Amino acid sequence: LRDDVNEVDGGSSRSVRDLGEFGLIDRLAGLVPGSTAVVGIGDDAAVLDVGGADYLLATIDMLVENVHFDLQDTEPRIIGRRALAINVSDIAAMGGEPSFALISLALPPSCSARFIEDIYEGLVLEAALTTTGIVGGNVTRISGPLCIDVTVLGRVPRDEVVLRSGARPGDVLVVTGSLGAAAARREARVGDHTADAAMMAAADRLPAIPVPRVTVARRLASGRIARAMLDLSDGLAGDVRHLCRASNVGAVLRADRLPISATTRTIAAALGVSPVSLALSGGEDYELLIAISPHDVERAQDAAGAVPLTQIGEVVSQISGMILLTDSGEREELPPSGWTHF
Amino acid sequence: LRDDVNEVDGGSSRSVRDLGEFGLIDRLAGLVPGSTAVVGIGDDAAVLDVGGADYLLATIDMLVENVHFDLQDTEPRIIGRRALAINVSDIAAMGGEPSFALISLALPPSCSARFIEDIYEGLVLEAALTTTGIVGGNVTRISGPLCIDVTVLGRVPRDEVVLRSGARPGDVLVVTGSLGAAAARREARVGDHTADAAMMAAADRLPAIPVPRVTVARRLASGRIARAMLDLSDGLAGDVRHLCRASNVGAVLRADRLPISATTRTIAAALGVSPVSLALSGGEDYELLIAISPHDVERAQDAAGAVPLTQIGEVVSQISGMILLTDSGEREELPPSGWTHF
Repeated sequence: LRDDVNEVDGGSSRSVRDLGEFGLIDRLAGLVPGSTAVVGIGDDAAVLDVGGADYLLATIDMLVENVHFDLQDTEPRIIGRRALAINVSDIAAMGGEPSFALISLALPPSCSARFIEDIYEGLVLEAALTTTGIVGGNVTRISGPLCIDVTVLGRVPRDEVVLRSGARPGDVLVVTGSLGAAAARREARVGDHTADAAMMAAADRLPAIPVPRVTVARRLASGRIARAMLDLSDGLAGDVRHLCRASNVGAVLRADRLPISATTRTIAAALGVSPVSLALSGGEDYELLIAISPHDVERAQDAAGAVPLTQIGEVVSQISGMILLTDSGEREELPPSGWTHF
Repeated sequence: LRDDVNEVDGGSSRSVRDLGEFGLIDRLAGLVPGSTAVVGIGDDAAVLDVGGADYLLATIDMLVENVHFDLQDTEPRIIGRRALAINVSDIAAMGGEPSFALISLALPPSCSARFIEDIYEGLVLEAALTTTGIVGGNVTRISGPLCIDVTVLGRVPRDEVVLRSGARPGDVLVVTGSLGAAAARREARVGDHTADAAMMAAADRLPAIPVPRVTVARRLASGRIARAMLDLSDGLAGDVRHLCRASNVGAVLRADRLPISATTRTIAAALGVSPVSLALSGGEDYELLIAISPHDVERAQDAAGAVPLTQIGEVVSQISGMILLTDSGEREELPPSGWTHF
């Protein structure tokens, strides 16, 4: 975020580009009055009491052509799957299971029906894989980039919901899966690296669609193992900040512990970037970041089953700040934010 | 819809412009498997059993710059109010009350923070007026037109939900409010009519934001008066077709009964268009179209209170088709569809 802009009007004349994604979200959230929601704006999903035994969870997220995907590079079926998967991931991050989805499409009029049907087949496939029912939607024209906005509703037993705000100093920070892969894949495909056949082949081995960690998250929630949880959409650095801010804590991350695959490291080397920076700031991995008691590490490993679970750091007191222990053992301030959409 | 396009591939090579909004929706709906929803795709909102005493209602609808509004012509606060109101209207059309909203914004990076805050203030105002809690959202960049997509969740007692499919031959068709006003306002502002000061003044008297008919719809639902109901988003002709198709019935509309305000008629005359065609095909009025038993007309009037309720026609058997009785007493086929977004 830039702080060097004239602030005489409190920042209202600044553009959204200047404010950044999170600066803008903060401003907008400040305009919204409280509601009867159990948890409103500020977590991965809203938590709503609609009278049943479970809480209802609700989340919305949009993919925009040329921001989140490129039609030259991404098959329509992949776009559809990803649009649903990233929302299911938000439900999982609350400890919940997805139930229903609503789909909004803004389409350039020249799109072929086949292309849109392929997007929808991706949505339907991902919905089937995550036992989510597609129950509504709309389509509209747009003179501009294709947009796909998805709402997913889920459910979680009332006493099993996991927020961002439950982390305590002394907790262990763990992540599922591996980090930086989405950024490595994206960066390898940006610009003309086609001459580097090895790198392009490596990029093709990385997954194009995140796997929402519903089962693991449910087990961590129902076993009361996860004290705080969120999904890694913005990159580890930004998302650790979200967790620390919500929980009023600090964090120490150990660079040498970050789970970064050999494929991601190969691509990082070819691109001349640090694999740790891909993990910290690359975004879009949609793995889970979880704070657990140090006494629950073994139970968490059991709950994760075949999904890798890696200790990457610790929760500390807020006054200690957010620290990265580098590979060489130095203490650095965690980079200020992850990937943003502005 | 054009039927003159080569259909060797079942139409998949056709563009969405060729298919039209409803042709495309039909194709996409055909790809979606059944779900556990009580009512899924095809009504104003999905009806979901989430375990409480009430059903949950869920709807999603997007406004796109240069399709649904024009930044030169529409204040940001109005855009925000309208985006929420049209979704609340869908909840009302099921007999429900709105509860919660989620907001997705795609913003050109050059937008000022003030502009976005004004949109949000419109959303917050309309939410307050309709007792809807804004509980989540997201913002993203777009290199193109501003988009605002809103999901509204609502609730309705299980035995009071009103679908599109309950109309029976012999029912009376009634509408709330007046028709054609949104189209008259829109058409008066398209092109350069500024020389016609009287018409522009008339257009300014027409409402820029629809009033969701929540209270009336709730009374018609709880009193078991409404047999079928939907909101008029596409224009009366298109929406009567939706009702007839869902209920497997036909309809006769009486042009001389359509409630069209003097202001709308003034603008229609100045534009040289038929006020009836504005009502039939103009769209965006967001009034309710309701099928009721002829025995319930008086009870419906009581339920509507101060909101005008007008008998505009009758439900007939499906084989009779969809007929317009013109001002001069002739029987015409109802125009094929209302306003579409392609």
